[in-house]
Amino acid sequence: MKLAELGEFGLIDRIKANVAASPSVLLGIGDDAAALVSTPGQVTLITSDMLLEGVHFDLSFCDPRTLGRKSLSVNLSDLAAMGARPRHFLLGVALPREIPLEFMDGFMAGMLEQAERFGATLVGGDTCASKGGVAISVTALGEQRPELVLKRSGARPGDLICVTGTVGDAAAGLNELMRGAREGFLASRQLDPTPRVEAGVALAEAGVASAMIDVSDGVLQDLGHICELSGVGARLELSRLPLSDEYRAACGADPYALALSGGEDYELLFCIPAAREAEVGRICAGLGLRVSVIGEVTGGSTIELVAPGGTPYTAPRRGFDHFGSD
Amino acid sequence: MKLAELGEFGLIDRIKANVAASPSVLLGIGDDAAALVSTPGQVTLITSDMLLEGVHFDLSFCDPRTLGRKSLSVNLSDLAAMGARPRHFLLGVALPREIPLEFMDGFMAGMLEQAERFGATLVGGDTCASKGGVAISVTALGEQRPELVLKRSGARPGDLICVTGTVGDAAAGLNELMRGAREGFLASRQLDPTPRVEAGVALAEAGVASAMIDVSDGVLQDLGHICELSGVGARLELSRLPLSDEYRAACGADPYALALSGGEDYELLFCIPAAREAEVGRICAGLGLRVSVIGEVTGGSTIELVAPGGTPYTAPRRGFDHFGSD
Repeated sequence: MKLAELGEFGLIDRIKANVAASPSVLLGIGDDAAALVSTPGQVTLITSDMLLEGVHFDLSFCDPRTLGRKSLSVNLSDLAAMGARPRHFLLGVALPREIPLEFMDGFMAGMLEQAERFGATLVGGDTCASKGGVAISVTALGEQRPELVLKRSGARPGDLICVTGTVGDAAAGLNELMRGAREGFLASRQLDPTPRVEAGVALAEAGVASAMIDVSDGVLQDLGHICELSGVGARLELSRLPLSDEYRAACGADPYALALSGGEDYELLFCIPAAREAEVGRICAGLGLRVSVIGEVTGGSTIELVAPGGTPYTAPRRGFDHFGSD
Repeated sequence: MKLAELGEFGLIDRIKANVAASPSVLLGIGDDAAALVSTPGQVTLITSDMLLEGVHFDLSFCDPRTLGRKSLSVNLSDLAAMGARPRHFLLGVALPREIPLEFMDGFMAGMLEQAERFGATLVGGDTCASKGGVAISVTALGEQRPELVLKRSGARPGDLICVTGTVGDAAAGLNELMRGAREGFLASRQLDPTPRVEAGVALAEAGVASAMIDVSDGVLQDLGHICELSGVGARLELSRLPLSDEYRAACGADPYALALSGGEDYELLFCIPAAREAEVGRICAGLGLRVSVIGEVTGGSTIELVAPGGTPYTAPRRGFDHFGSD
């Protein structure tokens, strides 16, 4: 069955049928706007990301279900980086009229299973025809007490710089996918990232972090955002970068270049006072999540990279810029 | 200057510099998510719309500033249809790398002037490269007391059906634009609609309407949404449809077809108890806005169309469906 046979309103009804009610949703899918009840004492955290076929994803690499999961995950990762609990989301999707209905069924199944896992309810959005490829826009809303929200600003000289999980996997996975791989650890890190929602909330509620961001544009660029907004510098010890065995096997002669510049790992990068290192280790261990100290915040204005043995290292590439020339 | 020279983060800084602070925005553009403070006792109304080049707009018809205004207006119109006051919005925009920076400057100037007029603050979003045309996604947030929110459900048999302004202009304007016109009343109704924000809020706060929607897909289709969700039917008297002189001059032999099926007028279509007709007239007159009673809600399940003289009328076309066959 093609979308054109179902029609726009048939598609909306089909999506709506799979969405459960939630007490905070006064009015969900099907009116001009959704009506949401806020939790007293909490602020709303809101973020929006577009994903375009041919730019952010390639339908020859990923099945619809995985794409549905990732489209929500990248937004939940932004909420996690603020320490917010996901609550609601909206989905805008532009589809070629001739796309099979199975595409949308798979996409929604993936998106709604990820939503359920992380406690987010679909409340509205927009469906329209595309004359180009598939275009997706997700807006996600979360909540947290205002004094616990973790910003990019707030890092102080002397703070330790921490990162969850391993870095560089998603970029190495994209290289493998482009060379024809369709499965494996690295490909799955690129296609189906796990937003670190529980860790973001736990770190915020423990009040241990001074600044936080998710690694979407690459460690170096994302740490650069923290430094710029906090008015600080940083020293990274490359020997401490958490690298997976699969990444090490795939990364070639220089293991640091892609781990520093590769985006889309969706790990959390955050700063903490040195005295709280053990507490952070316990929080992450309790969630079964690796955490590594990779450097220190400095009073300078640059990011100093230190290779094993103490020699300075110059990154060949900084990170991802949508309009940049490389 | 091309976008590629400015870069993604330069573009974000350039947009941010033109956005004023607002007391309800704890954290605006530049972090992983924005942090918004809700007004106690109010619910959040949230809506999202995508606008795609070649589907929703044609850059040979419209200048960037007008496109910026319309991209926000269509979302504010959805908030107006709920009776909500606009508060915040997010903008996602995908741009070809070679687009001149002047495009984005004009687009943002139009969007931010419309935002200021209607009291909405830009708080975040996403910028990315497009390999196709320009793609825009706006998510708008408003507030209202929960008991005043106007839904599509709620119309009762015997209610009068009202519409603000005139209908069919935007569809007639699109026809003129496609025939080469670049200005005039009808073209401007298509390219630069005015969301009926003040009227939506005033009608909600007066508690006079039983159901409301904005005319985005066409009077017949949008009234159909009210009927379906309210479990009622309707009788429309075509002689009472408010038609502009310019529309009448352009519409050809049948003045009703396009007025019933043409979308994008962004007028408010709403139902009221018959006893409150004079009050609604005073509210709209106070805003300098025409309002017309065009029919009555019935206990049936269909929309009956009555031509002048009392004969039944069959609409040649229902309204806009993104995946439909016409």
